[in-house]
Amino acid sequence: MPQWVPIIILGIGNVGRALTRQIVDLRALHTERLRARLEIVALADSDGAIFQPGGLQDAELDAILRAKAQGARLRDGELGAPLGDLLGLVDVAVDDGAIVVDLTASDTTIPALESALDQGYGAVTANKLPLAADLATYRRLTDHRRFRWEATVGAGLPVIATLQNLILTGDEVIRIEGALSGTLGFLASQLEAGAPFSAAVREAKQRGYTEPDPRQDLGGLDAARKALILGRMSGLPLELSDVVIESLYPAAMNSLTVDEFLDALPALDQQYAQRVAEAKATGLTLRYAAEVSESGARVGFQALPPDHRLARVRSSDSIVIFQTARYNENPLVVSGRGAGAVNTAAGVLGDILSLIA
Amino acid sequence: MPQWVPIIILGIGNVGRALTRQIVDLRALHTERLRARLEIVALADSDGAIFQPGGLQDAELDAILRAKAQGARLRDGELGAPLGDLLGLVDVAVDDGAIVVDLTASDTTIPALESALDQGYGAVTANKLPLAADLATYRRLTDHRRFRWEATVGAGLPVIATLQNLILTGDEVIRIEGALSGTLGFLASQLEAGAPFSAAVREAKQRGYTEPDPRQDLGGLDAARKALILGRMSGLPLELSDVVIESLYPAAMNSLTVDEFLDALPALDQQYAQRVAEAKATGLTLRYAAEVSESGARVGFQALPPDHRLARVRSSDSIVIFQTARYNENPLVVSGRGAGAVNTAAGVLGDILSLIA
Repeated sequence: MPQWVPIIILGIGNVGRALTRQIVDLRALHTERLRARLEIVALADSDGAIFQPGGLQDAELDAILRAKAQGARLRDGELGAPLGDLLGLVDVAVDDGAIVVDLTASDTTIPALESALDQGYGAVTANKLPLAADLATYRRLTDHRRFRWEATVGAGLPVIATLQNLILTGDEVIRIEGALSGTLGFLASQLEAGAPFSAAVREAKQRGYTEPDPRQDLGGLDAARKALILGRMSGLPLELSDVVIESLYPAAMNSLTVDEFLDALPALDQQYAQRVAEAKATGLTLRYAAEVSESGARVGFQALPPDHRLARVRSSDSIVIFQTARYNENPLVVSGRGAGAVNTAAGVLGDILSLIA
Repeated sequence: MPQWVPIIILGIGNVGRALTRQIVDLRALHTERLRARLEIVALADSDGAIFQPGGLQDAELDAILRAKAQGARLRDGELGAPLGDLLGLVDVAVDDGAIVVDLTASDTTIPALESALDQGYGAVTANKLPLAADLATYRRLTDHRRFRWEATVGAGLPVIATLQNLILTGDEVIRIEGALSGTLGFLASQLEAGAPFSAAVREAKQRGYTEPDPRQDLGGLDAARKALILGRMSGLPLELSDVVIESLYPAAMNSLTVDEFLDALPALDQQYAQRVAEAKATGLTLRYAAEVSESGARVGFQALPPDHRLARVRSSDSIVIFQTARYNENPLVVSGRGAGAVNTAAGVLGDILSLIA
């Protein structure tokens, strides 16, 4: 008999849809290769929750996900218990092998994750916020050995597992450098190709590469959270406020609406054109990079020589360079596509599978 | 109480010494972070075996490893039970959480690994031979979900775990390319720097980069075994004889002694000098590369354009490029130092830790 692995998914967006698809499509493979049968027993978001102790039927999952994609609400009141409340209910019905998966972009899931881990559940998150909360919360969560967070940095790329492995096998991090934002990588490449800053931002927004409010990307906060996670894993006692963040727009523009912000952007064009020209004049390449070392963590534009590893990857790729005691002159480097719902879901699924090893 | 994890080590060479050191030195970290206490309960090699159900004391391990390094034999007759026989004895004393670690370079461990896995033990190998044996053996071994083999390719680099994760999350391998031999990478760089082939081989041997008989490296068999493992994991039903291998010396030289072989090498100098000159004339770089795709697996020298990923890494680095359905235009690339006893031991230790997740 295959091992029964009940999965509870919090947050039902693009990644949740992709993950559900993968779990259903790969059930035969997992049963054959891992003697494990993954069953989604609950779905919850801020609307409500659906819970089926025996596992939701594939057709039912399809219908729910299709409805959600079209903007429907979960059947409110089915349990009437969104997110955190769900755990108490699930608790009575599933065993210790259950795995809670956080695919939200909300820090309200922190109590649910903690409660799940305290009760012996596994927990997997693609959501950076719990790990980028205050240091005490980070430590309480990561102190649980059945907690995984691969997809928080680099989507499906093996970044977190690699760093965790380095640390647990006794290596010492000297420095981590990375280009971790597809959005800012795209911007950098557009600027280098000669596009004005304002046009590059509009293009990124039109292609769906940015959040609805592009300031969430341009402010560097997302990249900073990733640097914070890598720094904390490396043993640095950092708070988010310790990360030096270069925002790509002045703070005064935070008071604008999104449309006002986009209209005001051309005021920044000349400054960026000059920066690109200066870099080019000295043969350098602009990249929005993250850096973590003993002296702290920072994210921002860097002008790099063309043979620097960060400059050599395609701007749409993510890359992480681990320089450690064992990988010192020959750093350990991981690169590739580090974004997208399917790749992120694969990162989450890999974490789930690591919990049933 | 931390989880008790009995470890049985087969093969006590450089990697075994490094692994033992890591297990002992990291015991506090593993107890704190993983609530697990790794204890070496048995050491075995072709000389004999030592077994201590409660775990060998650190001082005792030190003494054994120091004596082995100086060429002593294991205390014969302590059990009188080398390798395979050991398992029957250990079986009565340790529980299912035990992990057998194969650090030999022998295919005689296959029955021991199979027996261990059949009894519910975990098993970890840095030894390529069991996975490069006939396809039926490969399948029987890898069919066990508590079997790991990270260190067989790229030492401590996350190559096997990455490929396994791609496959178990439903990705499809299109092509894997790699430079997987530090020894042959060193040779290629020496040739490019203008060294005669014979001098480059002698230099590699003097530095300890080759096996005592350098033909074991120069024949390409080691690289072919790695390509075979990657190919089989990707779903190709390959035997070792299916891998196309470019040997760096003619088969006729197999009948020579090692000294005769080294003395005969200058006869090959002109041929390699010409090959390097031809590559340079067209701006290409020589690398000993492995390639796995639907059309099969092969290893050999390739003349590559300088912007090819395989050509851009330092010749002493290993690199693996996974081109898959999800990482197609942006392949997933892992690179870094892929050799050395400490890094290999770290790859093995990471596998052990993955079994106690």
